[in-house]
Amino acid sequence: MKRERKGEIWDFEHELPGGSGGGGQRLILGLDGGTTKTICVCMPIIPFTANHSPPVYARAVAGCSNHNSVGETAARETLEQVMAEALSKSGCSRAAVRAVCLAVAGVNHPTDQQRILDWLSDIFPNDVEYYVENDAVAALASGTMGKLHGCVLIAGTGTIAYGYTEDGREARASGAGPILGDWGSGYGIAAKALTSVIRAYDGRGPETMLTCSILHELQLSSPDELIGWTYADPSWARIATLVPVVVSCAEVGDQVANDILLHAVQELASSVKAVVHRLGLCGKDGKDSFPLVMVGNVLEANKRWDIGKEVIRCISKDFPGTRLVRPKVEPAVGAALLAWNYLIEQYH
Amino acid sequence: MKRERKGEIWDFEHELPGGSGGGGQRLILGLDGGTTKTICVCMPIIPFTANHSPPVYARAVAGCSNHNSVGETAARETLEQVMAEALSKSGCSRAAVRAVCLAVAGVNHPTDQQRILDWLSDIFPNDVEYYVENDAVAALASGTMGKLHGCVLIAGTGTIAYGYTEDGREARASGAGPILGDWGSGYGIAAKALTSVIRAYDGRGPETMLTCSILHELQLSSPDELIGWTYADPSWARIATLVPVVVSCAEVGDQVANDILLHAVQELASSVKAVVHRLGLCGKDGKDSFPLVMVGNVLEANKRWDIGKEVIRCISKDFPGTRLVRPKVEPAVGAALLAWNYLIEQYH
Repeated sequence: MKRERKGEIWDFEHELPGGSGGGGQRLILGLDGGTTKTICVCMPIIPFTANHSPPVYARAVAGCSNHNSVGETAARETLEQVMAEALSKSGCSRAAVRAVCLAVAGVNHPTDQQRILDWLSDIFPNDVEYYVENDAVAALASGTMGKLHGCVLIAGTGTIAYGYTEDGREARASGAGPILGDWGSGYGIAAKALTSVIRAYDGRGPETMLTCSILHELQLSSPDELIGWTYADPSWARIATLVPVVVSCAEVGDQVANDILLHAVQELASSVKAVVHRLGLCGKDGKDSFPLVMVGNVLEANKRWDIGKEVIRCISKDFPGTRLVRPKVEPAVGAALLAWNYLIEQYH
Repeated sequence: MKRERKGEIWDFEHELPGGSGGGGQRLILGLDGGTTKTICVCMPIIPFTANHSPPVYARAVAGCSNHNSVGETAARETLEQVMAEALSKSGCSRAAVRAVCLAVAGVNHPTDQQRILDWLSDIFPNDVEYYVENDAVAALASGTMGKLHGCVLIAGTGTIAYGYTEDGREARASGAGPILGDWGSGYGIAAKALTSVIRAYDGRGPETMLTCSILHELQLSSPDELIGWTYADPSWARIATLVPVVVSCAEVGDQVANDILLHAVQELASSVKAVVHRLGLCGKDGKDSFPLVMVGNVLEANKRWDIGKEVIRCISKDFPGTRLVRPKVEPAVGAALLAWNYLIEQYH
């Protein structure tokens, strides 16, 4: 069954002009696999300077590839499809690929890494270099042009803080998913909002504008119906789409919504602080400068109630050397740059 | 596919002596469908007095039948199998059944009820009476011998508070599942404990004995591995099995575990208080007597750290007329008694 599907996915290779080698091209694939979407970019191995954007031949987008959210089979199918689409758009086959950097949410343990490495080597020819990382690592690299130093905070559907020292030590906080307390994530914010609606309806919590706004957004008529809606589909991303509703309610002064966002800010800041502390990125006096890369739509809302700005304010109080970086390239390009840097290290 | 399966489930009926009528027996099926297990009892329609235990011919046990947890197909298969097993053990066929009371977790809305009623009428002959309720209603009936009055608090894998007034008004609180804030449930307690382990490991929270105890219980070597363990299987009941570990840690003085249990007590008590308030079960002066039926292993632990006792203490402070009832029969028998009472009402 899987074999058959894989055949279909790569069918385009037979139709490429000049055989399967892609005309002597040498390519890097960079993947950013998140809980909402997965992006693959295809980068040629040609020189470029730091002042210019890295060259990108093609870009493909697919759905969730976090195996903890959708299961391993679905996650792998998504990853394979998005790689094939990016290559197909570049007009190249797998034979042109020299390195793949796969940065996916849900990679938390060496065994996760090894399973994906084994699976990758089943797809590509033998002489490809593989790098498998948590998606946070690619997000950091997207802000530092492939150099792993400093801290990154992602807050999209999920959230994670990840850091590296110049000498290669690393640390993370959060990123353990919704059951294990990622309260600053988009999912966490939305789940708390849904919970507040239920509590108000039960008589266990204060009335909130969230009730009206969320029911309207979901086209439901009663909070009772939220229970069925919530469990009808286990996807985390679906819950997280309610974040803008929470922000809107907080902006017009709803206390419950405001408290949810304030709590999220505390949680997000505390993840970064934990990483900075453990790695000593702030130096002994707590004032050293380090880059903090911020990524994800929860931090990029840029509305009147600006979650990202509040998080930075909260972190800077403890660490005045925090240097905010908003990446100019996307995390998938960060993943490709990582592979590029690994390749260069290896050949020098 | 479904038809085929259903055939197998009911095959035993062809082998019953004296044809399919079960020798003129008239039976009631009472089902208690929870998130951990489902129980079906088969009760003959024969007179009995309140001083005696209700007669039960047979009892069958199966797994989870909460469609919000395992999906609708699996939930229905479980319900059908457990009914067939109870009938088979009684030596009777479906033709002997006069009434079925199906009390299942996850029935939150009239549409949930209707879907189950439609499905039931596909299984049984036409002249059967069906009653579909939330499992909390059967738990209340198990403490009041089928009379719906007072309040029930269930705290097992999930939690819900449900109440009825003498004149038939009803109200509920909680029971919205883990995503929607059932923090006093077994799942809620265990998820908070797992989260505390992750937070301590990240450097975001205080050290706790829970780390060692939970890793030992699950035979894991590092908190990293908890993430994979948690999401490997989405069953809520599996997470909730960690409650005794939390209780043990609290008993030997672990502050984090203690705080988790104290919070659960507050949450459970607040659900009951919300129901009592809305129904006015406590009367105008707040001192009227009403039965509070308590069910579920979180409340029955009966250890040194006794969650049930603390919940009662907390509720009695506000409502001194709270009369604790520990049911002598199980909720499935409560469901059968409900059907019995409904039948009697109907024929008088």
